[in-house]
Amino acid sequence: MEVRLKILFTSLCHTDVYFWEAKGQTPVFPRIFGHEAAGIVESVGEGVTELKPGDHVLPVFTGECKECRHCKSEESNMCDLLRINTNRGVMLNDGKLRFSINGKPIYHFVGTSTFSEYTVVHVGCVAKIDPEAPLDKVCVLSCGISTGLGATLNVAKPPKGSTVAIFGLGAVGLAAAEGARMAGASRIIGVDLNSNRFEEAKKFGVTEFVNPKDYNKPVQEVLAEMTDGGVDRSVECTGSINAMISAFECVHDGWGVAVLVGVPNKDDAFKTHPINVLNEKTLKGTFFGNYKPRTDLPSVVEKYMNKELELEKFITHEVPFSEINKAFEYMLKGEGLRCIIHMGA
Amino acid sequence: MEVRLKILFTSLCHTDVYFWEAKGQTPVFPRIFGHEAAGIVESVGEGVTELKPGDHVLPVFTGECKECRHCKSEESNMCDLLRINTNRGVMLNDGKLRFSINGKPIYHFVGTSTFSEYTVVHVGCVAKIDPEAPLDKVCVLSCGISTGLGATLNVAKPPKGSTVAIFGLGAVGLAAAEGARMAGASRIIGVDLNSNRFEEAKKFGVTEFVNPKDYNKPVQEVLAEMTDGGVDRSVECTGSINAMISAFECVHDGWGVAVLVGVPNKDDAFKTHPINVLNEKTLKGTFFGNYKPRTDLPSVVEKYMNKELELEKFITHEVPFSEINKAFEYMLKGEGLRCIIHMGA
Ligand SMILES: NC(=O)c1ccc[n+]([C@@H]2O[C@H](COP(=O)([O-])OP(=O)(O)OC[C@H]3O[C@@H](n4cnc5c(N)ncnc54)[C@H](O)[C@@H]3O)[C@@H](O)[C@H]2O)c1
Ligand SMILES: NC(=O)c1ccc[n+]([C@@H]2O[C@H](COP(=O)([O-])OP(=O)(O)OC[C@H]3O[C@@H](n4cnc5c(N)ncnc54)[C@H](O)[C@@H]3O)[C@@H](O)[C@H]2O)c1
Ligand SMILES: [Zn+2]
Ligand SMILES: [Zn+2]
Ligand SMILES: [Zn+2]
Ligand SMILES: [Zn+2]
Repeated sequence: MEVRLKILFTSLCHTDVYFWEAKGQTPVFPRIFGHEAAGIVESVGEGVTELKPGDHVLPVFTGECKECRHCKSEESNMCDLLRINTNRGVMLNDGKLRFSINGKPIYHFVGTSTFSEYTVVHVGCVAKIDPEAPLDKVCVLSCGISTGLGATLNVAKPPKGSTVAIFGLGAVGLAAAEGARMAGASRIIGVDLNSNRFEEAKKFGVTEFVNPKDYNKPVQEVLAEMTDGGVDRSVECTGSINAMISAFECVHDGWGVAVLVGVPNKDDAFKTHPINVLNEKTLKGTFFGNYKPRTDLPSVVEKYMNKELELEKFITHEVPFSEINKAFEYMLKGEGLRCIIHMGA
Repeated sequence: MEVRLKILFTSLCHTDVYFWEAKGQTPVFPRIFGHEAAGIVESVGEGVTELKPGDHVLPVFTGECKECRHCKSEESNMCDLLRINTNRGVMLNDGKLRFSINGKPIYHFVGTSTFSEYTVVHVGCVAKIDPEAPLDKVCVLSCGISTGLGATLNVAKPPKGSTVAIFGLGAVGLAAAEGARMAGASRIIGVDLNSNRFEEAKKFGVTEFVNPKDYNKPVQEVLAEMTDGGVDRSVECTGSINAMISAFECVHDGWGVAVLVGVPNKDDAFKTHPINVLNEKTLKGTFFGNYKPRTDLPSVVEKYMNKELELEKFITHEVPFSEINKAFEYMLKGEGLRCIIHMGA
C-alpha cells in the first residue's frame, strides 16, 4: 500500500518549523520534514491499484483510507488509519523507516517527508490530480492553502454579507480570507502581530486590519467595538493559544462561529469562561479545512484551473533545494507567504 | 410594556437555588425568586397590545422583543433587550421595582419573580398559550423542560441512530434525554453523581448509566471506551464545570457535538487542550434550548396537548405555596424532579 514519489516542488508551512524547532512539541530526530508538495509517482508497491508510475500527485499529511467511519462520514476527514500523527516517525504498515544515511535511520514526518528528491508515502495520503495542473503552483494546495480555504468554506461557512475576522495573515490565514471573499463576506478583518502583513493582505480581500499590539485591551474587545458586539465568523490561523482564545471570544453571541486551525503547543490550555459558550457562541476546529484529500483535492485543483482561485499571489519566493534554509529564514522573519523549493532536475 | 400576572402554579428550577445560595453568584437581596410558572394576565400596562386580561400565559426568564438582530436571526434567541440577566433586580423600563414590603424594596429575579401571587413582567417575556392547556402541567415548560428538550432537538440535533450522553439527570437533563429519544437516538447514556436518579431515568428513554464516582478515571474516558471513541452528541445539564469539560471531551472526534446548558459559577473556567477542538469536536451552548419564547413556546405546549410529549412524569411532588421550602429540600436532596407549587385560589 505504499507509493514512491519523485518530489518536484515543495514549500515550507509553519507546521514544519514548529516540529523542527521542537520547542512546544515532541522532538523526533533525525527527521526529514516537508509536507506541502507536488510530485510524480515513480513506482507503486503491493496492493496499490489507484495509482501508476507517471501520475501527477499531491502528497497530504492527513490521509483517507476510504473504509473507516470517518472516511464514510460526511462530516469528518479524520481517517482512523491515516489521520495526522506528528509524533510517529515510521511507516504505518511495518513500523519501519524508508530513509537512512550511512546505515543510520532517519525518521519520517507526518507520513510525507517531502524535503527529499524521493519519498515513500501510504497510498491513502496521495491525491491524484489533473496532469495539466502546473505542479510548481498547485503544490501549495497540498497543505496551507486548502486548509485555510476549507476552514472558511467548509467549516465556518460565513453567510453572504457577514463579517469575518482572520487571525494570522500567513498563507493559511490569507487563504481563509480568500474563502471569506468567495463566500460573499462584506467585511474581512485581518488580525496579525506583524503589521508588515497588512499591505499584502489587501490583495486577498482583507478590508480592515487590527494589530493587537496597538491596543492596551484584549483584541476581542477591540473587534467587538468595531462590529457592534462581535464578528459573525472567525478563523484562527496562528498557532498561538492567545489568538485561539481571542478568536473564540470575539464572535457574536447568539450566532457566532469560531474555527481553530493553528497547531497548538503540547502544553497549551484553551481557557474561557463557560458563559461565553452558554451565550450561544460555537467553537470548532479543523485539519486540512475538512477536505478529504483523495476525494476533494482534485476539485480544489480544478478551482485553480478554472481561475476561481488564484495561487500565484501566495507564492512570494522560489529557491533551489540547495538553498532550502532561505525558506526557513523567510518564515521566521515573517517575510512573504510561500517559498517554493525546486527539487531540481 | 408591562403585564401584571396572577401566578397559579410555579415550580423550582436549580437556577433559583444557585442564586438563592449565591455561593458562586452575585448576591442581590432581598429578592423574590421563581421563573418556571404559569398564570393568567390580570392587567396590562401602556403599549401592550398582544395580551389582554384573562389570557393564559407562561412567563419566561429570557424574552423576545421581536425587533432586535437576535429576534430577527433564525439562529439566536438571545434578544438584545430581554435576554436573561441574573444580576439585574429591577424592571427594564424605569430601573425601578414593583415589589416592596413595609415600604422597603424587594428585588426581582430574571424578570419573572414567580414565587408571588402576583408579579409584573415585561410583555416580551410572556408567551400566550392555548387556554385549554392545564396550567398545573405546562408550567414546567416555562423553563426546565423546554430548555432540555430544545438543547437536544434544536442545538445538538442528534442524527437518527446516534449515541447521546446526558450529563445530569434532573428535570432539564431528562427533558434532553426525551429529546434524544424523539430524535431517534439508539443509545442514550445518562451520567449522574447521584445513582438514585438512574431508576427514574429509565422512564425517559435513558438506556445506560454511568456514575463517575464508580471509576477512578475521568468519565470522558469511560464513555469513550463504551462507545468506540466517543459519543455522537452530549448535553450537559448539571451546572458543574467538571461535567461541562467532560461533556465536551467525551464526544467523538470528527463529528461530535457537545451542548452546555448548566448555569456555571461566576468564577468557573472552561479548560481543555486545544487539540480537542482541532480534532473536529464542536462546542455549543444554549439558553432556553434556543426556543424564542413568544414565537416557539405555544408549539411546545401543543406537543403536550397532542401527546407527543409527556409532562406528568417530570412532576414528582406538589405542595401549597405555604410549604415552598419543601420544594427546596427536595431539590437539595436530589429527590424527585419537579415540585409544583400551588399558589392557591
Ligand atoms: N489545522 C491544519 O490542518 C493546519 C494546516 C496547515 C497549517 N496549520 C497551522 O496554521 C498556522 C498558520 O500557518 P502558516 O503557514 O500560515 O504560518 P505563518 O507563520 O506564515 O503565519 C502565521 C501568522 O500568524 C501571526 N501571529 C502569530 N501569533 C499571533 C497572535 N497571537 N495574534 C495574531 N497574529 C499572530 C504571525 O505574525 C504570522 O503572520 C500554523 O499554526 C500552522 O501550523 C494548520
Ligand atoms: N441554559 C438554560 O437556559 C437553563 C435553563 C434551566 C436550567 N438550567 C441549568 O440546568 C442545570 C440543571 O437544572 P435542573 O433543574 O435539572 O437541576 P437538578 O439539580 O434537578 O439536576 C442536576 C443533576 O446534575 C447532577 N450533577 C451535578 N454535578 C454533576 C457532575 N459533575 N456530573 C454528573 N452529574 C452531576 C446532580 O446530581 C443532579 O441530578 C442547572 O445548572 C440549571 O441552572 C439552564
Ligand atoms: Zn502544513
Ligand atoms: Zn479512513
Ligand atoms: Zn430554570
Ligand atoms: Zn429582541
